[in-house]
Amino acid sequence: MNHNTKTNVMAHIDLNNEFPGIRGPMGFRPETARPLNELAELLLRDDNNTLSRGDRELIGTYVSYLNDCFFCQNVHGALAGHYMQCNLDQMNAIKKDPSGAPISEKMKSLLSIAGSVQKGGKHVTTGQIDAARQVGATDREIHDTVLIAAAFCMFNRYVDGLGTWAPQDMNYYVERAPRRAEEGYLDFDLAK
Amino acid sequence: MNHNTKTNVMAHIDLNNEFPGIRGPMGFRPETARPLNELAELLLRDDNNTLSRGDRELIGTYVSYLNDCFFCQNVHGALAGHYMQCNLDQMNAIKKDPSGAPISEKMKSLLSIAGSVQKGGKHVTTGQIDAARQVGATDREIHDTVLIAAAFCMFNRYVDGLGTWAPQDMNYYVERAPRRAEEGYLDFDLAK
Repeated sequence: MNHNTKTNVMAHIDLNNEFPGIRGPMGFRPETARPLNELAELLLRDDNNTLSRGDRELIGTYVSYLNDCFFCQNVHGALAGHYMQCNLDQMNAIKKDPSGAPISEKMKSLLSIAGSVQKGGKHVTTGQIDAARQVGATDREIHDTVLIAAAFCMFNRYVDGLGTWAPQDMNYYVERAPRRAEEGYLDFDLAK
Repeated sequence: MNHNTKTNVMAHIDLNNEFPGIRGPMGFRPETARPLNELAELLLRDDNNTLSRGDRELIGTYVSYLNDCFFCQNVHGALAGHYMQCNLDQMNAIKKDPSGAPISEKMKSLLSIAGSVQKGGKHVTTGQIDAARQVGATDREIHDTVLIAAAFCMFNRYVDGLGTWAPQDMNYYVERAPRRAEEGYLDFDLAK
């Protein structure tokens, strides 16, 4: 059994496919997969954004880590690592302690806001917003940070709420990141 | 000042409009509003669904109540009440105690699953899934329940994470429900 093989953990419902993580329910219900992937593409890859693709994938990775979603934190952690040119150990260190990580003060402030959104919208304070502005974050960047964090609170719950399976070998995620970075979230092959 | 007037509570960022609740950030960033509204339309209104529109709005209302999101629980509570022909007191009673409410056993089981998704995807148990199946829930209905609950965990965080304002008069929500029920979530006028 190689690292891509489905384990004996069954999803809560019969998804009619053996795709891992969010791909399982996306294959089961392609109608709802479309706007979910359009949202991911706009938030995480669209070029009309002053946050880099690495910045945005890192926000999603951090929220997925806080939500303890194995599949999402590793898919998006591998993508963030691909864009930021850092390895698994470095990415794990950022997830565990963003404030002490070698990232910009702006990204530290935005990850702090994302961490509050993960707990619940009302946890975001005016102090966090002011701090982000003081290190250069724009209203649009704050908006996108809140929506990316909120969206991953959805994606993570979709993946784990249906009891989907996830490959346990980190190579699965790392090997696929360059292609996902190139192809994006629209019209990708669920089986690859 | 009437009940539709913006209060002195300012959003965390300058949204360049005075629309309440999720309409504020949707007006600020229409690009991301599009897939969000497409998702809402598909999940909550699409006719290709064995859950009624009332059932689906009730799931969103209940999760918004658990997330303490004033705007969402009242917009969608008014819509659920419109479809289910029940008043505010009856809707409040359902939100506070779904298991004791005059709704179907299937809806009680699905609201139980939605309540677990609100806490986090891993809170959903096989026992909850089995119980839902035993009272007639299909895999597709369980899937949609999980995704609706997950989506409202996003919408609620988007609304409250940006500190948007909400009309406090319940009439605001009740009066608009019939039109929203008719017009749906696509291409609606953010100002109305």
